[in-house]
Amino acid sequence: MGTYVIGIDVGGTSVKMGLFDKGGRLICKWSIPTDRSDGGIHILPDIALSVKKQLADKKISLSEAAGAGIGLPGPVMGSQTVYGCPNLGWGRVNAAAQLSAALDGMKTAAVNDANAATLGEMWQGSGKGCSSLVMVTLGTGVGSGVIIGGQIVEGAFGAAGEIGHMCMNPQETRLCGCGKRGHLEQYASATGIVRETRAALESSSQPSVLRELSDFDAKAIFDAARAGDAFALSRVKELADVLGRALAAVSCVLDPQVFLLGGGVSGAGEFLSSAVQDSYRHYAFSGTEETPVRIAALGADAGIYGAAKLVLGEE
Amino acid sequence: MGTYVIGIDVGGTSVKMGLFDKGGRLICKWSIPTDRSDGGIHILPDIALSVKKQLADKKISLSEAAGAGIGLPGPVMGSQTVYGCPNLGWGRVNAAAQLSAALDGMKTAAVNDANAATLGEMWQGSGKGCSSLVMVTLGTGVGSGVIIGGQIVEGAFGAAGEIGHMCMNPQETRLCGCGKRGHLEQYASATGIVRETRAALESSSQPSVLRELSDFDAKAIFDAARAGDAFALSRVKELADVLGRALAAVSCVLDPQVFLLGGGVSGAGEFLSSAVQDSYRHYAFSGTEETPVRIAALGADAGIYGAAKLVLGEE
Repeated sequence: MGTYVIGIDVGGTSVKMGLFDKGGRLICKWSIPTDRSDGGIHILPDIALSVKKQLADKKISLSEAAGAGIGLPGPVMGSQTVYGCPNLGWGRVNAAAQLSAALDGMKTAAVNDANAATLGEMWQGSGKGCSSLVMVTLGTGVGSGVIIGGQIVEGAFGAAGEIGHMCMNPQETRLCGCGKRGHLEQYASATGIVRETRAALESSSQPSVLRELSDFDAKAIFDAARAGDAFALSRVKELADVLGRALAAVSCVLDPQVFLLGGGVSGAGEFLSSAVQDSYRHYAFSGTEETPVRIAALGADAGIYGAAKLVLGEE
Repeated sequence: MGTYVIGIDVGGTSVKMGLFDKGGRLICKWSIPTDRSDGGIHILPDIALSVKKQLADKKISLSEAAGAGIGLPGPVMGSQTVYGCPNLGWGRVNAAAQLSAALDGMKTAAVNDANAATLGEMWQGSGKGCSSLVMVTLGTGVGSGVIIGGQIVEGAFGAAGEIGHMCMNPQETRLCGCGKRGHLEQYASATGIVRETRAALESSSQPSVLRELSDFDAKAIFDAARAGDAFALSRVKELADVLGRALAAVSCVLDPQVFLLGGGVSGAGEFLSSAVQDSYRHYAFSGTEETPVRIAALGADAGIYGAAKLVLGEE
């Protein structure tokens, strides 16, 4: 087995890549644009070319690489095949096999990107030392990764970790992006937080610095709350309430060792995690009230760490 | 390794036991009373004595038994130690080690009773052929067992499968038995169904055959609904709604291959499961709408099947 391992994280605009030693040290990272033309058929060859070039630059032979793991924005089954990535223009693709062929038979494995991030955090981030964890990524949408017994849970239809589509409010009349109603993503994604806050501003006359802004994002809401704006604070509390309730629902089914919060919204740091921890404790089954809620540590690199770890396996 | 395997299911009033061949055929079953005197210290010796007697009667030597699995009404960690069984008067007990010692060193393993039932259904019941399933037991309380990748999920605090304590209604003012509010168990346990139905009867004037009964149980509600009583039907619909919503929450985290309904309430059969299936489909994330909801097949024997399967492992 080789000395190095490669982690790849394919997004809709760029492909991030990292070269690691087997101990989990990131030696270097780089990225290339995602070429979505022609139904995305150039993406895997582009990646293979870039990996080969990087290894050649570092005077590392292909045989010195233990493998390459690839994270993809779609449901992956059996660490091989992704069942469609709308963002890449892909239908069903055996990404692991195609990448291996393009890398002269290198050992490869594919993984859903949210699962990759979770595995990365377990390997070298905020979940280090744990074997069961759930990471919730608060970005444009709400994704999550679930690891039990050190293994990623893919699900029967590759839909494990779709916590963003947990129904938190059966009385909701507005639609989630998926076509159903009252889902966590409607309240806890970066866009959802802003939409809920705008609606609350309109339906109240409470003063707030947010009223003075022509436009604002989730970060502005957290900044205002941190500066003591009572209205903004009530919005953060509302967000923490729904998130804590969702984590408590996960806990009474899986009882993981730790919850991690990642994605852009998690930039709010401990201000967010401690509010979610309080709400979680309020809703959690008594035996599980002390499960920690932490901010993820690896940021946008979590995916390349996790993809690398996947192909390393238990090594 | 031996030819036979023993499954034991310890309840508050009786201990059920079964002798199986390794293919999963139940050769015979029997039970003894649970002696809870003296803090329950007689329970394991009584079981060992009864197992030895049964094997002797069948002219089977101890060495012909591959092992004995024991299901217990409390959280079990590492297939060994139970962290307290209030119903048995037990604190923390390494039940596997103590039972093994009493059975002259036989291979043993311990398991939470709800997990045992789930494993039993996976081995020889409604979950046969599956490796990921969630079974919800609707009895005096609401319990559940979670199996992922063929393995029972115990949880960090032994609290996996406490789906009965999922908060379904954060606005609820009445308390669950656990001290928190709005939990599934308050609406979907046998006692919860009756309590909710009584409350609904009092707050409406809708006619119903249930009004003519001085007392009724969950079965009477299902019987009335099946006979066309509109009020009783609305109660079954309400139950199915909350259960389907809870299963959908589980699904967007774990995406299991199948859901099973067990316990006394599941005696309502397909009348119940098809109503829950409809509600589940309504709430489920679109990728997982077709996950089947089935009635468990093994009834009160599921626990002895699962305890036996646990000690057999992957054999």
